[in-house]
Amino acid sequence: MTGIRTASVGDCGGILRMIRALARYEKMEDQVVATEELLREWIFEKKKAEVLFATEDGKDVGFALFFYNFSTFLGRAGIYLEDLYVLPEYRGKGHGKALLKRLAQITLERGCGRLDWQCLDWNERSIAFYRSLGAEALEDWTGYRLSGKTLEEMAK
Amino acid sequence: MTGIRTASVGDCGGILRMIRALARYEKMEDQVVATEELLREWIFEKKKAEVLFATEDGKDVGFALFFYNFSTFLGRAGIYLEDLYVLPEYRGKGHGKALLKRLAQITLERGCGRLDWQCLDWNERSIAFYRSLGAEALEDWTGYRLSGKTLEEMAK
Repeated sequence: MTGIRTASVGDCGGILRMIRALARYEKMEDQVVATEELLREWIFEKKKAEVLFATEDGKDVGFALFFYNFSTFLGRAGIYLEDLYVLPEYRGKGHGKALLKRLAQITLERGCGRLDWQCLDWNERSIAFYRSLGAEALEDWTGYRLSGKTLEEMAK
Repeated sequence: MTGIRTASVGDCGGILRMIRALARYEKMEDQVVATEELLREWIFEKKKAEVLFATEDGKDVGFALFFYNFSTFLGRAGIYLEDLYVLPEYRGKGHGKALLKRLAQITLERGCGRLDWQCLDWNERSIAFYRSLGAEALEDWTGYRLSGKTLEEMAK
């Protein structure tokens, strides 16, 4: 039995395990400073993100974390998928597609204009999957970031 | 006299003019379907974004539209700058930097971990400006999008 369920405040430990597993897969585990307490505060109290789990026989085998973004061209919010991850031993069984399908439904149900996400350029398996769904690649844009010292410097 | 002010619900017409001016600059004006009514609904009623204006002698000469994103690695929200624009005749006077400075302050005041945005790769002037501020370029990522028919298809 496979399915999708919405995470609730009791799931912070499970969400953190998924975040760490994804970070290992992306070769960035050393960058994870999230804690269960932070996830409780920012996801379930301040409501800055939402989480879905993919399930198989009652076990959480993948997750999607998403939030609202905003398109000025469309004049309305969209949905941004920050993380999509399925545990390696449960891949190839449709869990990733089921999560994306539910997110596409949520995007339309909420009157949002589009569903966006980013993917690491070396992740050919995921890119092939996204292209097979008809996703448009936004090749002409590069992300920029201020954090830590550069952010503090800019605020002065 | 230059300054920064927070937009309110009476500013939807001014916000739309800025969005259109930016779209012209980005050579994408044909993609703008936003209306004042949509901006009122999604920014000021549903509160999915916030807007700052840069001002000079009482006139709005630039704007920044931003919203919360979320970093799973940091376990907390960040601030995402969707649009930053200064009218051509008011450039080179520090308005863009003043908007970014205020955004960096907001990011820190709200306990957020980082300030992110994207820039078109041909926009060398802006890229040089962002790099001069110490912004990190996220070169390894590409954006993907489902919208319109591909979004509807995915939701089925």
